[in-house]
Amino acid sequence: MADSRPSLRTYSYLGPRGTFTEAALAQVPEAVGQNWRSVNNVGEALDDVIEGRSDAAVIAIENSIEGGVSVAQDALATMPGLRIVGEYLVPVNFVLVARRGTTLADVKVVNAHPVAYAQCHNWMDATLPEHGHIPATSNVAAASALFENNLADAAIAPPGIVAHYDVDVLAENIGDNPNAVTRFLLVSKTTALPEPTGADKTSLIAELPVDRAGALLELLEQFSTRGVNMSLIESRPIGDELGRYRFIIDADGHIRDERVADALLGVRRFSPGVMFLGSYPRADKASITFDPKYSDDVFVEARDWLRGLITGEPEA
Amino acid sequence: MADSRPSLRTYSYLGPRGTFTEAALAQVPEAVGQNWRSVNNVGEALDDVIEGRSDAAVIAIENSIEGGVSVAQDALATMPGLRIVGEYLVPVNFVLVARRGTTLADVKVVNAHPVAYAQCHNWMDATLPEHGHIPATSNVAAASALFENNLADAAIAPPGIVAHYDVDVLAENIGDNPNAVTRFLLVSKTTALPEPTGADKTSLIAELPVDRAGALLELLEQFSTRGVNMSLIESRPIGDELGRYRFIIDADGHIRDERVADALLGVRRFSPGVMFLGSYPRADKASITFDPKYSDDVFVEARDWLRGLITGEPEA
Amino acid sequence: MADSRPSLRTYSYLGPRGTFTEAALAQVPEAVGQNWRSVNNVGEALDDVIEGRSDAAVIAIENSIEGGVSVAQDALATMPGLRIVGEYLVPVNFVLVARRGTTLADVKVVNAHPVAYAQCHNWMDATLPEHGHIPATSNVAAASALFENNLADAAIAPPGIVAHYDVDVLAENIGDNPNAVTRFLLVSKTTALPEPTGADKTSLIAELPVDRAGALLELLEQFSTRGVNMSLIESRPIGDELGRYRFIIDADGHIRDERVADALLGVRRFSPGVMFLGSYPRADKASITFDPKYSDDVFVEARDWLRGLITGEPEA
Amino acid sequence: MADSRPSLRTYSYLGPRGTFTEAALAQVPEAVGQNWRSVNNVGEALDDVIEGRSDAAVIAIENSIEGGVSVAQDALATMPGLRIVGEYLVPVNFVLVARRGTTLADVKVVNAHPVAYAQCHNWMDATLPEHGHIPATSNVAAASALFENNLADAAIAPPGIVAHYDVDVLAENIGDNPNAVTRFLLVSKTTALPEPTGADKTSLIAELPVDRAGALLELLEQFSTRGVNMSLIESRPIGDELGRYRFIIDADGHIRDERVADALLGVRRFSPGVMFLGSYPRADKASITFDPKYSDDVFVEARDWLRGLITGEPEA
Repeated sequence: MADSRPSLRTYSYLGPRGTFTEAALAQVPEAVGQNWRSVNNVGEALDDVIEGRSDAAVIAIENSIEGGVSVAQDALATMPGLRIVGEYLVPVNFVLVARRGTTLADVKVVNAHPVAYAQCHNWMDATLPEHGHIPATSNVAAASALFENNLADAAIAPPGIVAHYDVDVLAENIGDNPNAVTRFLLVSKTTALPEPTGADKTSLIAELPVDRAGALLELLEQFSTRGVNMSLIESRPIGDELGRYRFIIDADGHIRDERVADALLGVRRFSPGVMFLGSYPRADKASITFDPKYSDDVFVEARDWLRGLITGEPEA
Repeated sequence: MADSRPSLRTYSYLGPRGTFTEAALAQVPEAVGQNWRSVNNVGEALDDVIEGRSDAAVIAIENSIEGGVSVAQDALATMPGLRIVGEYLVPVNFVLVARRGTTLADVKVVNAHPVAYAQCHNWMDATLPEHGHIPATSNVAAASALFENNLADAAIAPPGIVAHYDVDVLAENIGDNPNAVTRFLLVSKTTALPEPTGADKTSLIAELPVDRAGALLELLEQFSTRGVNMSLIESRPIGDELGRYRFIIDADGHIRDERVADALLGVRRFSPGVMFLGSYPRADKASITFDPKYSDDVFVEARDWLRGLITGEPEA
Repeated sequence: MADSRPSLRTYSYLGPRGTFTEAALAQVPEAVGQNWRSVNNVGEALDDVIEGRSDAAVIAIENSIEGGVSVAQDALATMPGLRIVGEYLVPVNFVLVARRGTTLADVKVVNAHPVAYAQCHNWMDATLPEHGHIPATSNVAAASALFENNLADAAIAPPGIVAHYDVDVLAENIGDNPNAVTRFLLVSKTTALPEPTGADKTSLIAELPVDRAGALLELLEQFSTRGVNMSLIESRPIGDELGRYRFIIDADGHIRDERVADALLGVRRFSPGVMFLGSYPRADKASITFDPKYSDDVFVEARDWLRGLITGEPEA
Repeated sequence: MADSRPSLRTYSYLGPRGTFTEAALAQVPEAVGQNWRSVNNVGEALDDVIEGRSDAAVIAIENSIEGGVSVAQDALATMPGLRIVGEYLVPVNFVLVARRGTTLADVKVVNAHPVAYAQCHNWMDATLPEHGHIPATSNVAAASALFENNLADAAIAPPGIVAHYDVDVLAENIGDNPNAVTRFLLVSKTTALPEPTGADKTSLIAELPVDRAGALLELLEQFSTRGVNMSLIESRPIGDELGRYRFIIDADGHIRDERVADALLGVRRFSPGVMFLGSYPRADKASITFDPKYSDDVFVEARDWLRGLITGEPEA
């Protein structure tokens, strides 16, 4: 699977093999049989896309427990030229793995990425009350470290790890929340919009134009006055000083939906510091519902009416 | 002054000669030297326009003391096909007139239109505490009645009356409020819009789509979220049952101003029951001021941005 | 029925006997058998109350076709010390009456109050296309004039007129809108509030504090953010200059309802120029419905919570 | 400095000695000379307070670059009975330290907490382009690890580290953003409110009552309609499913300010799922400015007015 095969598309993902991100990439239909490029972090994955080494990248954007993935949100906010073209959900289950022959009773020290460790906190405390913790840089690195040194006796890892490492699974489903899920985005440079499906999402990042009471309110009104629901709103510091934020917003609908387009116009007029990140099908395929008074034909009718008034045609 | 002169335009107004409406018509530059057609009421004046007997009509729409002229508001709301093309202000002064030879001391009974009578109430009570009042159908009819019967000794009339009747002026400026003014509209069937002047007004009539808490609020937000000020908002009963209203609105600006056009789009989407009555220069020629964030170029830029996103052009 | 009977209460109303206002007064339970004082206009009726000549007055405030009764609205706005304590609805039907022996075919000239005349316009045009109109100062005056001079052959009058004048009824139900109704208020000086009934109305008059985009919006938000519906909102010119308005508002609910009280607090903070006119049972006895999240116990719970926080009690 | 000295108050902080959190604790006047208790994480620090092992804890809550400290926000949201009583700002500077005798040229592998590492990314890439990175569990642990094994040649650490470890400082101010600052909170169990200072902040956490368009808007309006500015609003997943959030809000002002108290009432009525976290002096001591129409006396006057109406006192 080399970059030199020109007929294959390349997809960057947080590797190595076995990560949750790889599991997300496995859900991307058009990536099947293509070149999968493992990278070390979100920044590298998006750099690959911008600099043409990859056609697209899969990045984790939000965890149902941990919240937004700040580094991914900040990367999208500061790396222009990217577009979200797909969304995928991966259940977050963890297994405790060890070198062959190890038993639970042998486990004194556990290697684990801090986030995974936090999500298995209750299970670990109940099952291995005396354990120590060594932090790993990633979930897969926690497992691979078992074979690089003897610092840890076991590792917390994604279920997919067993396909890549010769480990014993000491326990399954050790995460504290059985419904935990991580949301991933497929990001490319294309500016061609996926077709509306009726179950779409539109992502953008907006800075507030001024720091005053009501500025955020005014931003949100751009959506509510057009009947557009937001499934996500998160603040991230702009980074220059305390108290200055940009907002990551996921709105229901597609930019080709009239109400969404009109909301975007309102946002743009309100704040020139707005980035459109894409309109793409929702992972959950849930159809967007909205008040019929915000349907496309209402917008079209109003525009026709206005045009008639301005051009002087008699009112129908 | 006959309708048969085809080269003249015809202007209907509430007559006869001497009314405040005639004074308003005298302010209309393009009406000078044209055919002035005196009618008996607002309905007749607007009927003349609709049926082609007149090119335009001048009607009183609001008095600074009495408020909106209901009959004119209701006529505009229910007679489709009309457009406001101009606005004129006439100071409301009254004189007390009588047949030649009459003195103030002779005055026992006064003929007056009820509205005029109300506006001179203080002066009348102070000067003629014992007088009786006979209602007249119009200000000029009050004066003309002096010559038709002997029921009244004097009449309250507009100052212009002296050009048309052989009367003595017993007192001038008898109105209780020296700043009283009446606003008149010039109404035609044209759908060609007057050019924007920077000091324009846009009039419309909107019905609330549903009778619920917040419906009026939602209507008003269509203006406020685009920085469009309203100089007038009046409710009028629709007439079918108590509690159902339409709203007469004068908004600052011209329909060719982007923020006004966008507000009209919002209003139309909110309520199909909206009538555009016209965009026309304000009588007071006061330039419209608005927050620069609602200027035309902001709207144009946002539209260009959106178009680029939808067509897939790279973002600037 | 003399003022000298000290044990009787006195009620002022727009007379004489036979008016719609008298019909409204007849609906006031506590006025039965008391002293009914006929006056010439709304101002006199309210003056009677303020100066103690009457205990209460009945005044017309709104007609389903003509809209708000401006003179009554303005009187309430400018005469402090009054309170609305009741509301009554009177169907607006008209009869055409004439001196005994007159037939429809005899009718050439009709005496009618201009408002009544306007409301019978269609019937008059269809039935008596050639008739002339003499304006009367009131509906009853139109009938009584039949016996004072021979200027008119018939009069438009309220149905109750037959109890007071020896007339022939030439036609009944001649009003153009069979559902027309006029709303009347019972006004007194008492500051004791009627008990809440669950079907109440609260009336107030508010001036906008400043003339800017959004001021009216901010006023209305005081109600909508507390889930309080408005059954009436009307603008009236303050009268000092064009473009300055006060707003007459009828809100659903009683001042002792928490959400109404809180809305009034908001209005008062927003505009010191607010007059509370009263909380009183609705004429239509329709129970007020509102979102349970604005119920009294929600307000009480929040206040208890806040008090605990401020006094330092541990949070429940 | 032992826990056994009963006359001393105990303050928990993220240790060990040398952390930024210790630098924050050093700013707390009342903590000088008291018992400082080093713990391993935010959860332990807050547990100490709840269970009475400490009188208060200092925790990092927001970094100007990284954003909100999720674990601290979530801990405050889920551990009832805590109150914020103070706020402190610590500039975030980093030094590169090594065992005595090491030079920059010797550095191949750097031990660093991932967040610190990210904040020194540019400097590291420019100065040590070939370096490797070993993650540490904390900034101080990065330094201490230098003396526990030979895995790393240098460590990124806070400037205060030199007081506790025998290291050479290879470089100072290696953070990429010279204005970086971290905000810390002092948290206790007291429910006694600090006195208002005119430069206060009020913190709360609110859940949206329903997942619908406009719910967040309605929450924010509780503040904006009382002229209360928010210096912080952050969403955090509630954790039960994707798309459900709670909001962490810092509002300008003190709960004893009328406008803040009224906003809290509105928030509580809107969402019973609201936690008041405290009103306390701002670290930056910047006086709160607000529109005079939201001043205390306006609230008091309105309340007096309402009380008079309800009790039946004549209106002033």
